[in-house]
Amino acid sequence: MSTINHRVTLAERPVGAVTDSCFARDDVAVPEPGPAQILVEVTWLSIDPTIRGWMAYDTYLPKIEIGAPIRSTGLGRVVASNNDDLPVGSTVMGMTGWQQYALLGPEARIVPDAVDPEAALSIFGVTGLTAYFGLLDVGRPVAGDTVLVSGAAGATGSVVGQIAKIKECRVVGIAGSDEKCGWLTDELGFDAAINYKTEDVGDAIKAACPDGVDVFYDNVGGDILESAIAALALRGRIVLCGAISQYNDASPRPGPNNLPMLIARRGRMEGFIVLDYLKRAGEAIAALGGWLAEGKLTYKTDVVDGLDNAPAALNRLFTGANTGKVMVRL
Amino acid sequence: MSTINHRVTLAERPVGAVTDSCFARDDVAVPEPGPAQILVEVTWLSIDPTIRGWMAYDTYLPKIEIGAPIRSTGLGRVVASNNDDLPVGSTVMGMTGWQQYALLGPEARIVPDAVDPEAALSIFGVTGLTAYFGLLDVGRPVAGDTVLVSGAAGATGSVVGQIAKIKECRVVGIAGSDEKCGWLTDELGFDAAINYKTEDVGDAIKAACPDGVDVFYDNVGGDILESAIAALALRGRIVLCGAISQYNDASPRPGPNNLPMLIARRGRMEGFIVLDYLKRAGEAIAALGGWLAEGKLTYKTDVVDGLDNAPAALNRLFTGANTGKVMVRL
Repeated sequence: MSTINHRVTLAERPVGAVTDSCFARDDVAVPEPGPAQILVEVTWLSIDPTIRGWMAYDTYLPKIEIGAPIRSTGLGRVVASNNDDLPVGSTVMGMTGWQQYALLGPEARIVPDAVDPEAALSIFGVTGLTAYFGLLDVGRPVAGDTVLVSGAAGATGSVVGQIAKIKECRVVGIAGSDEKCGWLTDELGFDAAINYKTEDVGDAIKAACPDGVDVFYDNVGGDILESAIAALALRGRIVLCGAISQYNDASPRPGPNNLPMLIARRGRMEGFIVLDYLKRAGEAIAALGGWLAEGKLTYKTDVVDGLDNAPAALNRLFTGANTGKVMVRL
Repeated sequence: MSTINHRVTLAERPVGAVTDSCFARDDVAVPEPGPAQILVEVTWLSIDPTIRGWMAYDTYLPKIEIGAPIRSTGLGRVVASNNDDLPVGSTVMGMTGWQQYALLGPEARIVPDAVDPEAALSIFGVTGLTAYFGLLDVGRPVAGDTVLVSGAAGATGSVVGQIAKIKECRVVGIAGSDEKCGWLTDELGFDAAINYKTEDVGDAIKAACPDGVDVFYDNVGGDILESAIAALALRGRIVLCGAISQYNDASPRPGPNNLPMLIARRGRMEGFIVLDYLKRAGEAIAALGGWLAEGKLTYKTDVVDGLDNAPAALNRLFTGANTGKVMVRL
């Protein structure tokens, strides 16, 4: 085991797009675990759009401090432990950050050896829980509902759509290429997919959702949100999960011009943060694991190698280069 | 009883402000009630912002037909009846429209003689029910919450704020004159009031709601909605009741630029229509009547005389000339 901890840290806060100047690299001493803590050798990082927010300003978590490693979920092997529940040699998931070695507390979760690391971060980590609780608890679809998903070929959106199919909904995805759309309909079983770069999204939603949209699971915000509101069914629900189209805006952009439609349609728009649901993680993991084992749920990963390439991996989310879950393999 | 029914009808649909050219007047024969129907001599009309929508386009109800009387709630005396539950001589409330004589069906509700017509339309009609169900069912305030109300000196907003006080909330109102603000704080017991015409609304909300806004009851939309979102407390609820600032827009206006804040704050924004709650009207009327009798609830009316002046009365809502409930006395 090395005594040097290589890290990718926050050098300056992004304004607009995330550029190389936002990041620094350094090498510090590997820390010692304190009481109840473990030291983890990080093997995988989960790359999520919310990191962009954490770099820039206080959100549901305080912003990352300048000079600190970029905050991130990750996976690793326990190499030193002061916690009997998390023994040396086990694989754990937690807020490792962008570094080779991380100290985690009792909140770290053990990942069974039988679970592939890519499945762990795609399905059993923040991504899967975000899809599960956002769709089922906030969106509350019932069989026969039409569920529309933006960012549908992304890590969260692709799981949302599959859960909605399992729940016997009609599922329509919005994604940014014909290839992504083909993956949604041909491999994931979506009923329809809309390429927002080549189609009129408003017209396409109305064509694909002739009875209106009962649940819109939104990862994107902006114009696509406006188009979904226009197609909302009576008592439709809009799950605000993310607004990736806006995260790189240097100044706020006007919102949807049709919010008053929520009145006539009795629509509900609700934001959520998956951290609020961690107490119920077991329920989601059991369900997701069952569907995975039954072959009802699949995932795709977009793997970038090397800790120093984590910034480039993050930007794949904003250019839409990825299909499925962006991860960094250390 | 006259045999002539004088009416104010829809001549053309408004684009932008409602002008005289939108209306026509005519005289037709007083109709005969059909099976289960009653003929009502209209004595009072309830003038509500939603009428503007009904004139222009399909909403939660089909738009008013050209040549038909303007749709409106009203109060009147039964002058002929084919319905034993609604006998001649009783006072009833229902969708009378802007005319001297209206046919109503079994959905008409009897107003007891002890109830003043102005109280009936301000508190026990659509206005009071909208305030009651919108605040309590959609907003779900709990004691100690901060409740912010826009259009607070209007018919609905003034009742919303008083119910919120009864429910032991801190109540802040937004209105358009110092006189209106004074009425809210001095007579209705609001904890604070903001004059949106002379104050920076965003700053004033933050000053008056130091712990954030738990419930925002919005009658107005537009910039005030954006300012309220910016001040939303964790798990805050936004009740979309109306958007009167936008009803006269000839083309849609951009919405709030800060909707992604609903994610970090776990905010909920929900629209509703009081018609969905009519089955539960008894519950609301019992509660509102009790508070009125106990002196915990008061109301103000803005009475315009004469059926032909109903269009002018409607425009008082859009210029903000009224304090309290706009009504027409025939």
